[in-house]
Amino acid sequence: MSQFLVQLGNAATVVEAYLAAALGKQEGAGTPPRLADAIRHAVLGGGKRFRPFLVFHSAALFGVSEQAALPAAGAIECIHCYSLVHDDLPAMDNDELRRGRPTVWKAYDDWTAILVGDALQAFAFELVAAPDSNSDAGIRADLVHVLAVASGALGMVGGQQLDLEAGKLADQPEPSVQSIMRLQAMKTGALITAACEMGAIVGRARPEERAALKTYGEHLGAAFQISDDLLDAEGSSADTGKATGKDAAAGKATLIGMLGIKEARSHLDRSIEAAIAALNVFGNKAEPLIGAARLMGRRDS
Amino acid sequence: MSQFLVQLGNAATVVEAYLAAALGKQEGAGTPPRLADAIRHAVLGGGKRFRPFLVFHSAALFGVSEQAALPAAGAIECIHCYSLVHDDLPAMDNDELRRGRPTVWKAYDDWTAILVGDALQAFAFELVAAPDSNSDAGIRADLVHVLAVASGALGMVGGQQLDLEAGKLADQPEPSVQSIMRLQAMKTGALITAACEMGAIVGRARPEERAALKTYGEHLGAAFQISDDLLDAEGSSADTGKATGKDAAAGKATLIGMLGIKEARSHLDRSIEAAIAALNVFGNKAEPLIGAARLMGRRDS
Repeated sequence: MSQFLVQLGNAATVVEAYLAAALGKQEGAGTPPRLADAIRHAVLGGGKRFRPFLVFHSAALFGVSEQAALPAAGAIECIHCYSLVHDDLPAMDNDELRRGRPTVWKAYDDWTAILVGDALQAFAFELVAAPDSNSDAGIRADLVHVLAVASGALGMVGGQQLDLEAGKLADQPEPSVQSIMRLQAMKTGALITAACEMGAIVGRARPEERAALKTYGEHLGAAFQISDDLLDAEGSSADTGKATGKDAAAGKATLIGMLGIKEARSHLDRSIEAAIAALNVFGNKAEPLIGAARLMGRRDS
Repeated sequence: MSQFLVQLGNAATVVEAYLAAALGKQEGAGTPPRLADAIRHAVLGGGKRFRPFLVFHSAALFGVSEQAALPAAGAIECIHCYSLVHDDLPAMDNDELRRGRPTVWKAYDDWTAILVGDALQAFAFELVAAPDSNSDAGIRADLVHVLAVASGALGMVGGQQLDLEAGKLADQPEPSVQSIMRLQAMKTGALITAACEMGAIVGRARPEERAALKTYGEHLGAAFQISDDLLDAEGSSADTGKATGKDAAAGKATLIGMLGIKEARSHLDRSIEAAIAALNVFGNKAEPLIGAARLMGRRDS
């Protein structure tokens, strides 16, 4: 197993324990039991915990421990989990399974799933704003701000809106390579970029260091999405090389459908190289983040 | 028109202008147009703006201008608006009209309404965390924290969960006066209390002053809810004095249904007096907040 996958697994273990404890504390204060169960179903059901990994290893560039970066890592994972719960709803993507388990609306009901997502979004901001999460209020407020912008109408939620408009509304304009890249940069890229920036904030990075991590995150987010699309396209028809996977079946426009697999692969490679180049300022301390970028070129899950 | 209603109207004008400008700024940065329209529909469609009023007049006790309290006032109104958009969804209360206009899901669709709510929640935290919203990062972080706790599983969202469980799930335990009061304290009381606390935070209140405003908010929230229930019950059958309004028709347990109108009125009066008593420490500076409490005893809308 690659060094990156070991580090990813470690990050997952640490953040999952933190979130289980934080949710337990909230439950002790009186979360309605059925809501508490559904929140645990949403948050503690596995997942790669890629965003917490990015927070940890961005913060580590500045000598910050995982412990100190935990509230930021846990918060961004709560945002990611809430977005999955809402995206899976019948009114959105109508998915019944996630990671081999029933989705929250399927295991409970639509209204509980909506409320789970709403509660998790609030919980994310509670985690990073809590006085005991960081002794520096400037860091707490900055973390909230970056996370809120990345999650909102100009970021994740806006990207999901554009994605659903393309799939559900009639008479939509034909997508362009540029419009798809913008949609993806909002829907998945914004949160990946925010994870890197939040690590920089916790690490009290200088502006040019924070900017470097932001650039890394933007290219990494693009690579992440193309690699996802390639997995989808190649997974179902590796031999033909045509994009005939789930996305194509759902009528979703992807870069691969527009560029073809060869050009998409080349785009992926360029994004990976650009992500790695942004880390130059950090020297070999950035090895874990470099590893994350390199793995986008050879994902198999 | 009472002094209170004049002040309420002024607060509404000020916060509506602030929110329109803040949304306009976000749109300028690239909110997807259909999402932007739906957000405006949700936020700028009127409403009493009672929570912003409470923020303004709690902050004013400490000499803080409306201008300085605006981000907190706007943020809590965004949380309130998002909760209405989600509560109106077919999967929740299935309401087609609000303030005489189609609800967001009816005017657009379910998925847009879900995303409008999600975006507005993020926007609320963005408003109070933004560096230019307050020069003191400790105030920004504290505002986020109080608002997040009040909005989440232990507050507003948890209360909505309990309310929907009572209405939608079979084999629920018979509600008690105590369980209804807890549900209402979470569903509507938490945000009303948070509004008062947020005013105290912006005003750098001493701990005992903040505690007094919190106590005021808790009693005010209880009075608000009973007075709502009384309006509902008496509106439809003032002569009979029986609770035969919308809540009763929906099978919703209310304090009035359990206590009868006379005892509920007496409970309302006690809540109003307790709210006003909590303001003693502020002397006659607290006149607007006293006026708000008094009006709960004679609401006609």
